[in-house]
Order: sequence, then structure tokens, then C-alpha cells
Amino acid sequence: MEADFIAWLRGRLPAHPRLLLGIGDDAAVLQLGRRGQCVVTTDLLSDGVDFLLNEIDGRRAGRKALAANLSDLAAMAATPLAVVVALALPRAGGGQLAVELYEGMLPLAEKYSVAIAGGDTNSWDGPLAIAITAIGEPTDRGPLLRSGARPGDRILVTGEFGGSILGKHLDFDPRVLEALLLHERFQIHAGMDCSDGLSLDLSRMATASGCGALLELDRVPVSTDARALADRRASAATALDHALGDGEDFELILAVDSASAAKIIDEQPLAPLRVTDIGQFIAESGLWRLVDGVRQPLAVHGFQHQFD
Amino acid sequence: MEADFIAWLRGRLPAHPRLLLGIGDDAAVLQLGRRGQCVVTTDLLSDGVDFLLNEIDGRRAGRKALAANLSDLAAMAATPLAVVVALALPRAGGGQLAVELYEGMLPLAEKYSVAIAGGDTNSWDGPLAIAITAIGEPTDRGPLLRSGARPGDRILVTGEFGGSILGKHLDFDPRVLEALLLHERFQIHAGMDCSDGLSLDLSRMATASGCGALLELDRVPVSTDARALADRRASAATALDHALGDGEDFELILAVDSASAAKIIDEQPLAPLRVTDIGQFIAESGLWRLVDGVRQPLAVHGFQHQFD
Repeated sequence: MEADFIAWLRGRLPAHPRLLLGIGDDAAVLQLGRRGQCVVTTDLLSDGVDFLLNEIDGRRAGRKALAANLSDLAAMAATPLAVVVALALPRAGGGQLAVELYEGMLPLAEKYSVAIAGGDTNSWDGPLAIAITAIGEPTDRGPLLRSGARPGDRILVTGEFGGSILGKHLDFDPRVLEALLLHERFQIHAGMDCSDGLSLDLSRMATASGCGALLELDRVPVSTDARALADRRASAATALDHALGDGEDFELILAVDSASAAKIIDEQPLAPLRVTDIGQFIAESGLWRLVDGVRQPLAVHGFQHQFD
Repeated sequence: MEADFIAWLRGRLPAHPRLLLGIGDDAAVLQLGRRGQCVVTTDLLSDGVDFLLNEIDGRRAGRKALAANLSDLAAMAATPLAVVVALALPRAGGGQLAVELYEGMLPLAEKYSVAIAGGDTNSWDGPLAIAITAIGEPTDRGPLLRSGARPGDRILVTGEFGGSILGKHLDFDPRVLEALLLHERFQIHAGMDCSDGLSLDLSRMATASGCGALLELDRVPVSTDARALADRRASAATALDHALGDGEDFELILAVDSASAAKIIDEQPLAPLRVTDIGQFIAESGLWRLVDGVRQPLAVHGFQHQFD
């Protein structure tokens, strides 16, 4: 029952220096920095769309929900501070599921020193929905926006792309510390996390910045899981197609002036995580690829929620 | 589709002086006050539990979801600043429903100068779930907690109780300005909003404060809707039973020292909304009622989410 679960939760949640008031009241109270700016993002994940609870443990679902929110803070180069968690639990087994969800969140929250500041625990006749809101603090450089890319900037990405459905979409590490490190040490013009597919998210970043993007396809880091999918399936999708169109890579896409980009590529400050230069932003809008030195339009693929 | 809806939404959301970056990036950026404290609350409402979309318009559902969150900020005597909205939409008709939800939220957001800072719009095969997180700023007096009631404090409430299922649960006004006014002008020791039933929420407040509560039942303001329910139903529930046990009154429960309480009752600073003295907090724990000058235990009734 709700009261029992909340009592359990209160015993499990560690204290946090910036959490002035945690669960048990009508709202939580947080102390941000003295500048009083905060970064806020929300992500709702649900059974059947973002994970399948008949295939995975509730802990992995809870971890993913928190990681997806932290990835959005990483995209802004913000330091995670606190989250609140709203659950719509199925009535049957909802209590055990709620415990598992939090057991999946707690280690990740601890890793990033994120306070679980509060929540709302509901039951209903539907499947699980978990909505998390994350609050972070921008660095002194301010938040990293997706709208700052300039023609001539190089397109840098962390990690590898495609095939995350084979497991990474559940167990990925949000690039929180990586974004903070790069934002502190280098002049990053724009950044975002790649959640809906590299080509779709890159085109969104270019559009937000009022420019276009030219991909050098042979440079795109294709994951072994993307290759495995291409090998496995009867469909005509290549490993590169998966790298460009699959969702939930949760890697960073960055716009960096060419001198800084060369330095990052040379230094590889995130090693062993690799940063790769996959092309450049250009003045002409749209998404393009380079074939034998000639610019050709590149189709945008990715995940969008469908409703009518 | 998602992209169309977000484009519509961007056009509809007004600017807000404290919203440094609104929807369109990975997260929103807010400017709080210079002290950098914020109050955060989240509430998830769903079709079939909190409203029935086959009976009401999506606008009323959206309005209720926002109002319930604002009521939690009122409970802390915090000034609402911004909200983020996460939606799980049914696929069929989800686009129209999303528009209606926001059309219901926008006038209320405008009334309280709340920025709709961002959101996450998803579709799935389940019914509507709407999770809102609200961020507010405490006043110079700090947030109003539910844990500060002291034995001897009077129990004050706004408005009337019971029968909200007849309509008030959808169309209530969150007591935001009322809480701010009372918290500024008087020494309020503790406060909360009454969402799960007067007797249950009052007992929670007493427990959080380490004391008990003694209700003078003949003083409890019983709504006309509570009376209508008592008249209508074949069950034995009286109008007072409804006032004590029905959920979603969204009125304030306050703990105030007896001198200030007398002043508030005399001045009625929220008129035409009435503030009523319904008893006092006492040293002995538990919920009690006074019958012919004798203290008797009072059963706690209210709404709790059930899951196993």
C-alpha cells in the first residue's frame, strides 16, 4: 500500500546537502547555487514503449528512466542536483515493482550525487508509467544549448551509434561528467544528447542553429550492435542505417570550432570513451552527406511518437 | 504527430521573465530568486482514477492536473514559478487530447504567472497519464511545513469540505494566493493542502508534527455538495462523514497559535472565502473528537492508492 511504500522509501533515501526538505511534506525544498539558475527537464517512460516489463527486471526500467533524464541534463552540461519521480503503477504487483524501480534508480542517483527529492506514487488499471523530472545547475559557462552551432563548426560525437535495442538502451551511462568536462575545458558552441536517432537529432540541432549539417558517413562510429542487427535481419538495413536511424544511443552531439575540435580529437580527453569528428555544420540548411566530394541530401530517420 | 504538436505548443506558450530558455532544447532554464532556494513537487493524474475522459473534456483534465500541482505549492506557501508537463497519450485522438489538455492549463498558468517551461509528449497503447512537476519559490519566511504544529495551536481550514466528486475536484481554485497572504501576515506554524480527506490529512499533519489533533465536529464546514451526497445516497454516510473522509477538497489546513487564530477568524482576510477554526492540536498523539466535553478517538478516513 502507498503508506507502507513511502515509509520504506523514506528509510532508503540518503540525505543530500542541497536537499533542505525531502519526502514527507507537500513538496521538496532545494538549495541551488547562489546565482539561482536551474535547468529542468522531464521524461516519461512507459511499459511497452521504452521497456518491456515481461522481459526485464523493474530495476533496469527504473535505472533507464533516471538515466534518460540525466542524459538531458548532460545535454545542457548541467550538474544534476535532484529528481522527483511520479509513478503510475499497475495494481497487481505494484508495490514490488515500485521497490524495484527505486532499487534501480538509487545506485545511479548515488553515482551522480543526485537527490531523489520527492515523488508521487499512484496505482491504476493501466501499465507502468514513470515520469521523472530532473533539476540541475548550469556551470559558470551557462547551459549548453543546441542552438549555437555555426557554419564551419565540426560535428563531434561521443561513443558509437546504432543497435541500442540489443541492450544499451537500458544500461547506458548518461554522459553527464563527459559533458561537464568538455564544456569546462573547451569552447563548445552547441550540444545535445542523441535520443531519437543520430540523423534526426543532428538535423534538429542544425535547424535550431539556423544552419545545415554535412555528414562524412565513413567517419560515423558504428557500434558492434548495429553490425549485429544488420547481419541478423532479413531486411535491407545496413549497420550504417542503424547507426544513423536507431534511437536511444544517449551519446553527445557537439558543435565545436575546428581548432578546438582538432584538439579534442587529438587529446581524446574522455578516453577510453572515444570522441569522433563526423562532419561539419554548413550554412545551407538541411542534412547532407559527402559522396566522392559531392554534397547529396541525406534522408532523416529516427523515432517520433505517433498519435493522431 | 509529436513534431506538429510541439510546433503548435511553442506558438501558444507565452514568454515568462524567469524562463530563460523554454521548450525546444533538451531542458528548460529558469531564473529563481537570488537566494537560490526552490520548492519542487510532482503529481501524476490519470484517466480512470483522477478523471473520466469519457465524461469530461480534456481541458478540465488538464486544468485539474495543473491545479493539483499548484495546490501543493500553496501548501508550502511558495510562489509558483514554472511547471514541466509529461504526457502519455493514447494513440487514437492523442493529438487533439494534448491540445485540449494544454488549453485547459494555459488560462490557469496565466492566472498565476506560471511558465510552462517544457514537457515530454509520448504516445502509447494505454490511457492518458499526465505528470506535472511544479517549481516554486519560498517567501522570505521560508516554506510552510506540515511538521510545525504545536500543542495548543488552533486548526484552521479554508473553505468547505466533502462532496468534491460532484464537480469541485475538477474545477477547484488552488489556494495559492490565500496561502501566501496568510503566511505573510500571520505566524502560521504549519500548513498543508487537503487532498486525500480532512481526517486523513489532518492526522498526517499531526503525526508529522509529533502531536495529536482534537476536532470539534460541529465546527467542521460541510459543503452543500457533501449534504447533497448524503441526501442522495442509500448509504449511511452523513454529510459530516463526507466532509471528514472525501478526498480532493484542495483546501488549506493550518496550525496557528490561538491569538493569531482568533485574529484571523475575526478579520476573515480571505473573504469571501471563509476561514474556520475546527479544533486544536494537542500533545497526545492520534485523531480525536470532542463529545459533550469528552475526548473520543475519531476514525481516520481518506483516499490512499491501493497496490500489492
